[in-house]
Amino acid sequence: MSPAAANRTEAIGIVGAGQLARMMAESASALGLRAVVLAERPDDSATAVAAEVVPGVPSVAADLTALAARAAVVTFDHEQVDLDLVAAVAAAGTVVRPGVDTLRMATDKAEMRRRVQAAGLPGPAFEVLAGGGVLAAVEGFAGRHGWPVVLKAARGGYDGKGVWPVAGPEEAARVVEEADAAGTPLLVEEQVAIDAELAVVVARRPGGQAVTWTPVETAQVGGVCREVLVPGRLDPAVVADAAALGAAVAEVAGATGVLAVELFWSAGRLLVNEVAARPHNSGHWTIEGAVTSQFENHLRAVLDLPLGSTAVAAPAVATVNVFGGPDGADPVDRLAGALAVDGAHVHLYGKEPRPGRKLGHVTVCGEDPDDVRHRAWTAARALGTVVPAGIDLDEEGP
Amino acid sequence: MSPAAANRTEAIGIVGAGQLARMMAESASALGLRAVVLAERPDDSATAVAAEVVPGVPSVAADLTALAARAAVVTFDHEQVDLDLVAAVAAAGTVVRPGVDTLRMATDKAEMRRRVQAAGLPGPAFEVLAGGGVLAAVEGFAGRHGWPVVLKAARGGYDGKGVWPVAGPEEAARVVEEADAAGTPLLVEEQVAIDAELAVVVARRPGGQAVTWTPVETAQVGGVCREVLVPGRLDPAVVADAAALGAAVAEVAGATGVLAVELFWSAGRLLVNEVAARPHNSGHWTIEGAVTSQFENHLRAVLDLPLGSTAVAAPAVATVNVFGGPDGADPVDRLAGALAVDGAHVHLYGKEPRPGRKLGHVTVCGEDPDDVRHRAWTAARALGTVVPAGIDLDEEGP
Repeated sequence: MSPAAANRTEAIGIVGAGQLARMMAESASALGLRAVVLAERPDDSATAVAAEVVPGVPSVAADLTALAARAAVVTFDHEQVDLDLVAAVAAAGTVVRPGVDTLRMATDKAEMRRRVQAAGLPGPAFEVLAGGGVLAAVEGFAGRHGWPVVLKAARGGYDGKGVWPVAGPEEAARVVEEADAAGTPLLVEEQVAIDAELAVVVARRPGGQAVTWTPVETAQVGGVCREVLVPGRLDPAVVADAAALGAAVAEVAGATGVLAVELFWSAGRLLVNEVAARPHNSGHWTIEGAVTSQFENHLRAVLDLPLGSTAVAAPAVATVNVFGGPDGADPVDRLAGALAVDGAHVHLYGKEPRPGRKLGHVTVCGEDPDDVRHRAWTAARALGTVVPAGIDLDEEGP
Repeated sequence: MSPAAANRTEAIGIVGAGQLARMMAESASALGLRAVVLAERPDDSATAVAAEVVPGVPSVAADLTALAARAAVVTFDHEQVDLDLVAAVAAAGTVVRPGVDTLRMATDKAEMRRRVQAAGLPGPAFEVLAGGGVLAAVEGFAGRHGWPVVLKAARGGYDGKGVWPVAGPEEAARVVEEADAAGTPLLVEEQVAIDAELAVVVARRPGGQAVTWTPVETAQVGGVCREVLVPGRLDPAVVADAAALGAAVAEVAGATGVLAVELFWSAGRLLVNEVAARPHNSGHWTIEGAVTSQFENHLRAVLDLPLGSTAVAAPAVATVNVFGGPDGADPVDRLAGALAVDGAHVHLYGKEPRPGRKLGHVTVCGEDPDDVRHRAWTAARALGTVVPAGIDLDEEGP
């Protein structure tokens, strides 16, 4: 086999070069594989560790094709992709995993809600707002389910963007008007009382073989994940139900690779909230906290290789996200403080620091849930992360 | 801070681009650091994962200087370096860790033996063979310690190369003549009866703070490490003594970064065998088997950052090296078989496959020493590794 052919066999093309691609590339390196990333900017996170960088964007067919030509399989760092272009690349013979059908479910909230409902899986009540009379439809929906309701952009939202809780008709009218002006299709959902948020990460091979990591409890502030706790505070029976629900959603999605399902625990019910067809922030803990990480199993799955054990490696694991502090300092310049924390596994993404920008995460494994959480926050704070309102660290605790 | 300056602050220059540099680069990426490697060939192992590749060799001053210009600190993938050139780079203001004094001890077996002996630490009896009358000196040494003896090249040996056990005067004469013709300085050592081989890996900061991973038992065949067992079969008291001896050698060496000490267990005594001033094959198990890997702690040490915990992550860990099989196949094409082994952490180095070439390793963590060893070998064999004579897998076992 010529060196060029050898490279291609072992090369994984990744659309996007953010931190998910960076952590995939770290796993690829360990396995002797080559990560080839499609990078919009030369300093994108994954460019520092990828074996090869293809400059370009997923909205340009020639860029996608250039990536495909360098790889045995194409996968994704993010879902901001043009599904028609992806379908064309697949039709031309490139193996694309996950496939367009799964990506559509992960990128179109209306589609996701319909498919989850059609499969008999639980989610909030919803209505897709198509055609005319959108505001009247919202008011009708609220008449049946009560105000407040949640309006969502059917496509393009992430990290709390594209989600608008509205208390009544006037707020709803404002959102509907703005969405209409922007050409954003909407759906409306009941606003459920959230007692807890969970996430389940599943890895699935093309043939359907799947493994599930233990569901975790997440804390979101302003729609952004701030901490992940393994196990959370929920009853083991609920956690087991969450795992089964996550696996069922992955099957409905026909996923290949890693798929993450965010769940609400609401009034004694589990409800599907969001679906992402890629490694997910709620699975970063698996790098040190599980036998096989979500990144390694994603690579194994998209290459149709046997999946690794998802068993937890410690009784308690906490992951806390690192955000740029108000001074705009680079957390890499503050490593000393974080690494002084016993057992702190610091991950920084090499991104340009900006106040409030997600720049990394810290994971701590141990015996005691409060202890690992406290240590992870201590390290994240040393890196400049401000503890947000809504996260209670119980500093005076026992 | 300008982007260029920021890059420099977080950049670690690595002399050499082999698998040790590759695994350092994987750790660097996780920490948000940039690995810059000095690579002799564009397809060297670490080039696929380094943030930046400086083409060149350590024997050319301009190449070393080019590396130094791109990095905040310069460290090493291997010790085949010209110490005068390294000293010049350090004198010109580059932070070089480990320093020349440590590198001299690790690259000159005569120097290493002298310094270990001067510190009162145990090693085999030896004599440095300088000047004329070398053969007579060997015979005199054998007269006092008995044949066979071991002749060693003082510099340049690795993986069993440069080591010649000789049974009597005639064999000794042949080695002495060849070494003389090649200009290779020799030393002679007693041949000790090896009951077991151990290795200790130590990480040490510039100020002297040091951490030690638990000593491991290694199996060498033909001078090449084939497996690493944690814990080995040795008495815990011996293991504790080995850890203390390793730490003492690191202090004698004035090491900064990771230093590995290979030990003989011989007739109830621990003896220093070899010293390497870099991450070492005997420490690859720490990637999954310890809280902090040798690669991460090497980076932390050379950047003078707090060192991470070296606690073991499992009761039993086995690492088995992967060598190219007789068919010359690339183990990356055989990943499916290896990844089907439960808990097998496969590391492939992206090196061109050749029969007998070290191409990767497999680590398995678990509860039972025999079980993890068996699984690691099963995965290594699936990747094409032939079990060598001298490794007893007890296939018929209990």
